[in-house]
Amino acid sequence: MSIKSWIAVATIGITAITGWAITANHAQASAFTTASDAVEYRQKAFSLIRENFAYMSGMVRGERDYDAEAFKQRAQALYHLSHIPFEAFTGAGENVTANSDALPVIWENWSDFESKRDTFQAAVKELVSAAASENMREIRPKFMDTARGCQQCHQGYRAD
Amino acid sequence: MSIKSWIAVATIGITAITGWAITANHAQASAFTTASDAVEYRQKAFSLIRENFAYMSGMVRGERDYDAEAFKQRAQALYHLSHIPFEAFTGAGENVTANSDALPVIWENWSDFESKRDTFQAAVKELVSAAASENMREIRPKFMDTARGCQQCHQGYRAD
Repeated sequence: MSIKSWIAVATIGITAITGWAITANHAQASAFTTASDAVEYRQKAFSLIRENFAYMSGMVRGERDYDAEAFKQRAQALYHLSHIPFEAFTGAGENVTANSDALPVIWENWSDFESKRDTFQAAVKELVSAAASENMREIRPKFMDTARGCQQCHQGYRAD
Repeated sequence: MSIKSWIAVATIGITAITGWAITANHAQASAFTTASDAVEYRQKAFSLIRENFAYMSGMVRGERDYDAEAFKQRAQALYHLSHIPFEAFTGAGENVTANSDALPVIWENWSDFESKRDTFQAAVKELVSAAASENMREIRPKFMDTARGCQQCHQGYRAD
C-alpha cells in the first residue's frame, strides 16, 4: 500500500472514531483556541486533582482506612494530573477570568505563579516516593507539603 | 512544636484551602465511593484526552500550522492523561453504565480491556518520542497508532 493510501485509510479511521469526529472546524475550535475551552480544561483538570487529593486526605486524616496500594495509585494519578492544568492559563486562557475563579494577578505575577506551580509539582513527586514507603509517618509530611502546594495558589491567585 | 501540634496546624491548613474543605463526609463520598463520581471522573479525563488529541490531529492533518513546541506539549499532556481514566472503571465505577457510554462487555472482557489500555498507553509514549524528533514524517505514523489505540476501545466497548 502506498503511503498516501495508508494515510487516507488511517485518516478515515480517525474520523470514524465514535463521538470523536475531528472536522476542520472542530480542530480549529479546540485546544484553547477559545477562552471558554481553556477555562473548562483547567477546571476539569483541577477537579480530577481534587478527587485524588480528597481520597488521600481521608487516609491521612484517618477517616478512611489506609490502603497502601490505593494510596500509591492516587499519588501516581496526582503526579500525572499535576502537569495538566497550568498550560491552560496561557494562550486563549490568558487573562481570562470569565466563568473562572482565576484572579488577574496570576498574569501580573506570572513568574511567581510558575514558580508556585513548580513547587506544587515537586511536592507531588515527593509524595509519590513517600507513598512507596507504605509508611504513614513518611507520607503525612509529604502530603502536608502537597496541601501547602495547593494552598499557595489558592490564597492570592484564586477568588473565594 | 510537637508532632501533634504540627499535624493540627497542617490539618487546619488543609481545611482552610478555599473551596477544598475536606470534611469527613466529603472524603468518604469522593473518589469513586459513588458510581456517579467514577463516571464523571473518567468522562472528564477522556474529555481532556480528546482536547489534546484534537489539537494534534489538526496539525497532523495540516489544518493547523505545525508548531513543534506546542505539539510536544500536547503529546506530553496526552501521555500523563493516558494514565488517568482507566482506574475509574473499577471500584464504584465497575459495571456502571448509567449516564455513561461504557458497555457491560468491558467488564465481561476485563483482561482484553486492560490489554487495549496498555496498547493505547504504549502508543502515546511512542508519540511523545516521535514529537521530540520535530519531524512530521516520524510523528504521523505514531499519531495514527495512537488514533487506533483510541479506536480499539471505542469500537466494541463504547455505545454509539
